[in-house]
Amino acid sequence: MAGESVTLIGLWSSPFVLRVKWALEVKGIEYQYVEEDLSNKSAMLLQYNPVYKKVPVLVHDGKPLAESLVILEYIDETWKQTPLLPHDPYEKAKARFWSRFVDEKCVPALITTFFKGGEEQQKAGQEVRENLKILEGGIEGKHFGGEKIGFVDIAIGWLGYWIPIVEEIVGINLIDKELMPKLDAWFHDFLEHPVIKECIPPRDKLLNHNKASRKVSTSSST
Amino acid sequence: MAGESVTLIGLWSSPFVLRVKWALEVKGIEYQYVEEDLSNKSAMLLQYNPVYKKVPVLVHDGKPLAESLVILEYIDETWKQTPLLPHDPYEKAKARFWSRFVDEKCVPALITTFFKGGEEQQKAGQEVRENLKILEGGIEGKHFGGEKIGFVDIAIGWLGYWIPIVEEIVGINLIDKELMPKLDAWFHDFLEHPVIKECIPPRDKLLNHNKASRKVSTSSST
Repeated sequence: MAGESVTLIGLWSSPFVLRVKWALEVKGIEYQYVEEDLSNKSAMLLQYNPVYKKVPVLVHDGKPLAESLVILEYIDETWKQTPLLPHDPYEKAKARFWSRFVDEKCVPALITTFFKGGEEQQKAGQEVRENLKILEGGIEGKHFGGEKIGFVDIAIGWLGYWIPIVEEIVGINLIDKELMPKLDAWFHDFLEHPVIKECIPPRDKLLNHNKASRKVSTSSST
Repeated sequence: MAGESVTLIGLWSSPFVLRVKWALEVKGIEYQYVEEDLSNKSAMLLQYNPVYKKVPVLVHDGKPLAESLVILEYIDETWKQTPLLPHDPYEKAKARFWSRFVDEKCVPALITTFFKGGEEQQKAGQEVRENLKILEGGIEGKHFGGEKIGFVDIAIGWLGYWIPIVEEIVGINLIDKELMPKLDAWFHDFLEHPVIKECIPPRDKLLNHNKASRKVSTSSST
């Protein structure tokens, strides 16, 4: 829409910000991107997301939105081109179910695998593998839920980029290509899509950033 | 719709099941209710919600749905009478934001307040009060988000019934009526609505049930 203002407050290394970038790019929406410094939060972030004080925040014509999955639904309802959610209510429910499943089950286990050690890490790693196997069962087409890139791809596709980096840093295998062939193929296929690929941060930069984050966290918790 | 089959697998004492009951009742949808025994999970529950093995599960014409907020959206999209979510995408995003806020922030703190003791309980109690104060800021009309009962009322109104029971059992004040006058008034008003009131389990029964659950949990964790 002409004359409208769309601003994304983000952080280059956040997969939750990447979700919103992907949705905006897939739909071809022009937006301004503002990088946030979470160690010194901006007045804009505190004003627009006083409840969580986290990124991503999308500001559309002055109206702020927080929580990446809520933002994705808003984007899909506001800009109708290239629909992300399926039209059918049951298919829509499945897309919401899998996106929530990743946030509620996969992400906490992945964070524990990354930041903890010893038995706690091993247990969380096993949980990640089990959750990925469950996720494998949700793949129905070339993409998650069909032949075109949609809501679930955008909500969870980052796992295919972030998990191998976690595996490399902590030395634990999480994506078992033999047990999860569909998931593995889907990750590769999705991440090679030109619009998707364009937004992903460089692997070395993210690897070094995550290594450093882990070091800071591990040394401060011991 | 004539000839359709709607089954809710539930548990009388679960506020998440109550959400679905409320949505179905507010919309006047006929459904069969099946009480689940979570200590001896039924084949039907395991078949229809293999990922979480939890209630509520809604089965519509053989198609199962899990996760109460996902089910609410499905109900609202499938049966259009008495819309629960507002039509405007931004208002819709706000409704989703507050519903998720309760599940992600209020519920975990409330559970800790209920099941833990000592300093951990006091800290969680303080967190509940802070979250309720934030919630107070989200009330815009007679109901949450407007003049008619809607999505947020149905998603979070149970707090007004459950929290006073928690307060009574653990002896901690959580709803500060002077600091949260709008929230307190909204709880009362919402819970007095005839359709809403009709579905709520009797207070004494729920109080005794929750007292017993806490006793079992506290004795098994020491």
